[in-house]
Amino acid sequence: MKTTLINIGDELLIGQVVNTNASWMAEQLNRVNVDVEHIVTVADDPTEITCTLENELHFADAVILTGGLGPTKDDMTKQVLCRFFGAKMVVHQPTFEHVANYFEMRGLPFNEVNHHQADVPDCCTVLFNEVGTAPGMWFEQNGKIIVSLPGVPSEMKFLMNQYVLPRLEARHVDEVILHHTILTQGIGESFLADTISEWEDALPQAFKLAYLPQAGLVRLRLSARGTEQMNLPQRMQDELAKLEKLIKPYMVGEETDTLETVVHKLFTDRYLTLATAESCSGGALAAKIVSVPGSSVYFKGGVVSYNNEIKNKMLGVSEETLRKYGAVSRQTAEEMAQGCLEKMKVDYAVATTGIAGPTGGSDEKPVGTVWIAVAGKNGVSAHKYQLGNDRPKVIERTVNQSLGDLIKFLG
Amino acid sequence: MKTTLINIGDELLIGQVVNTNASWMAEQLNRVNVDVEHIVTVADDPTEITCTLENELHFADAVILTGGLGPTKDDMTKQVLCRFFGAKMVVHQPTFEHVANYFEMRGLPFNEVNHHQADVPDCCTVLFNEVGTAPGMWFEQNGKIIVSLPGVPSEMKFLMNQYVLPRLEARHVDEVILHHTILTQGIGESFLADTISEWEDALPQAFKLAYLPQAGLVRLRLSARGTEQMNLPQRMQDELAKLEKLIKPYMVGEETDTLETVVHKLFTDRYLTLATAESCSGGALAAKIVSVPGSSVYFKGGVVSYNNEIKNKMLGVSEETLRKYGAVSRQTAEEMAQGCLEKMKVDYAVATTGIAGPTGGSDEKPVGTVWIAVAGKNGVSAHKYQLGNDRPKVIERTVNQSLGDLIKFLG
Repeated sequence: MKTTLINIGDELLIGQVVNTNASWMAEQLNRVNVDVEHIVTVADDPTEITCTLENELHFADAVILTGGLGPTKDDMTKQVLCRFFGAKMVVHQPTFEHVANYFEMRGLPFNEVNHHQADVPDCCTVLFNEVGTAPGMWFEQNGKIIVSLPGVPSEMKFLMNQYVLPRLEARHVDEVILHHTILTQGIGESFLADTISEWEDALPQAFKLAYLPQAGLVRLRLSARGTEQMNLPQRMQDELAKLEKLIKPYMVGEETDTLETVVHKLFTDRYLTLATAESCSGGALAAKIVSVPGSSVYFKGGVVSYNNEIKNKMLGVSEETLRKYGAVSRQTAEEMAQGCLEKMKVDYAVATTGIAGPTGGSDEKPVGTVWIAVAGKNGVSAHKYQLGNDRPKVIERTVNQSLGDLIKFLG
Repeated sequence: MKTTLINIGDELLIGQVVNTNASWMAEQLNRVNVDVEHIVTVADDPTEITCTLENELHFADAVILTGGLGPTKDDMTKQVLCRFFGAKMVVHQPTFEHVANYFEMRGLPFNEVNHHQADVPDCCTVLFNEVGTAPGMWFEQNGKIIVSLPGVPSEMKFLMNQYVLPRLEARHVDEVILHHTILTQGIGESFLADTISEWEDALPQAFKLAYLPQAGLVRLRLSARGTEQMNLPQRMQDELAKLEKLIKPYMVGEETDTLETVVHKLFTDRYLTLATAESCSGGALAAKIVSVPGSSVYFKGGVVSYNNEIKNKMLGVSEETLRKYGAVSRQTAEEMAQGCLEKMKVDYAVATTGIAGPTGGSDEKPVGTVWIAVAGKNGVSAHKYQLGNDRPKVIERTVNQSLGDLIKFLG
């Protein structure tokens, strides 16, 4: 079922609000096999809303509108839809009572403006909004579905879950859409493409591959789409098995996994503890680790040793090492990780030291040179990386590479 | 100038990625007086891209496309635009050298797939992408502007700031547009609105005020728009002077200042040094400080003492304090800050300790309870805050409040 989302609201067009409704709706619709093909944001303006709706209905089987259902003058979606369907506005009695009650419970006057919240075009099926005052509306015309929902995320989500998703899911029992996402780390997008090029070219027509790169990691999403008869779940498994063989060394997670949740799972499953010693990443690695709720179970803490004196005093990196090899060196990275392991009394420690830039680089050690070391009870391992010359990216890539190295070190 | 944004990417249509590019672009375009009238998200599909572009060009003066410029097979925007303009693909030599160099610096082979990153339709003006491998492209046809940018946020932002915004702004020279932004910290949006309500209501017609709230801070942007004759620069000064009187205690910066750049300036101007001791913010405060290039001059380092043992061993918080008052207390925050000051031998130290949630709260100390202490040569000062119950927001607000407290402590 081809679907368009129309998000109505001036606040979206001036960038004051990020359109999180669209991504949430798309994700949920996708889950019940409804394809979102267009997402259109337009102003609270009758002409804009009408034209966009007309345009989209040329090809879409369903259009879901959000926003413009409030009681104030700048909200006009309901009037637009009433006119669009040549309908008459009538009072929806259950909604009227619900809204009256809503205001009474809050000790607020139920004025004329708010009365109109209970008006709906007479050709719609009301989606009763238990969690707010604006009713959802479901229209059908010429085999097409048009749904209007409030823009308030909690109300939109309630109505989607309660009515829209189950109704749409019931419509197309014959189509199958599958997705599987694989998280890779340690290989760039173009090299990944090279590595899997033959397999990708040979993918059957029902399959589609997407590359979703971020700093230092790439997600691969394999999608399949067809009918029940096509045996897609099994074929998806087969394709994934082939893919896995090709990129095994770089695979660190799947579906909604992130590097930090993979680390979280490894450490909690194995009852291990972790600490960090950061120079160039400056706390961003620790911050990424503690972004996962419950990380305090295994993450004991870290040292941000931005200065050599701190590397020496708090982590025990020897003055000689710092003098002889410099702060950005295998030796310093290793001593940072080992010092951290001992001082913090943990099972594993990760250390970063590098040149984030924009200054501080040299011919021998240009901006972007980063050493990452991981220490555990069985020793320490360090690797050197070149992570570009853009300070925030160098930091982000250092964090992702550190988590990747840690995951590989744990095996 | 009527503008449409076309964001290309399957990941947006299945809700895997929230379209933050659109809101950022809309906000920036709005700032230079470019009106975004439509934001359309479509698939990485030649027909979709072409049809949407054609449709939007019927009414828009400018169309900005993002996404679909990567080296892999699922990216096809460049080919689509080449065909759309009836152009020929040619190698852009500076980009070719830049991309070759990019790969060489990372010690990576420059393969066939990546060579194509330097291809562009011969009718475009290349917007040289210093921070990535996909060049931006600027087309003009029949008085309309079509711009294609990479979807990677950092690259899109670089090209917008460097080329697209200045060029679009230069198109309407007869108009005067002024903006002034004030950074406030320590007062919520609605209280700020209350405080300046009379002044805001009395603003002349040419003026417009926008509230841009983030976790724990609010930016106020005053804009004025009109003709040369309206004497807007002087009137802007007058309005700002009135505003400043009302909110002086909360003003910490202006224009592009951020809390971390204000801290940066304070510490570099006064030749001071700084260190951090973080519990609930888990490294995010240090990471924010070092996000500013050159911060190594004054930031010596920090301890992430997620665990009480680390608070005691690395920062010298007494076991008695931890037992008697708990980790989330004035006493612990103060001892963390003072311990950090002494151990790291710095002029100032900031400490955070709190409950980021979702678990760990109690009736007495619910989730979101955070103590922040600042220590300097003349003593230590601590404050307690309630920062909500959403883990990432609690962490972000803790960071911003800590920087705000530090700025006020320095006076």
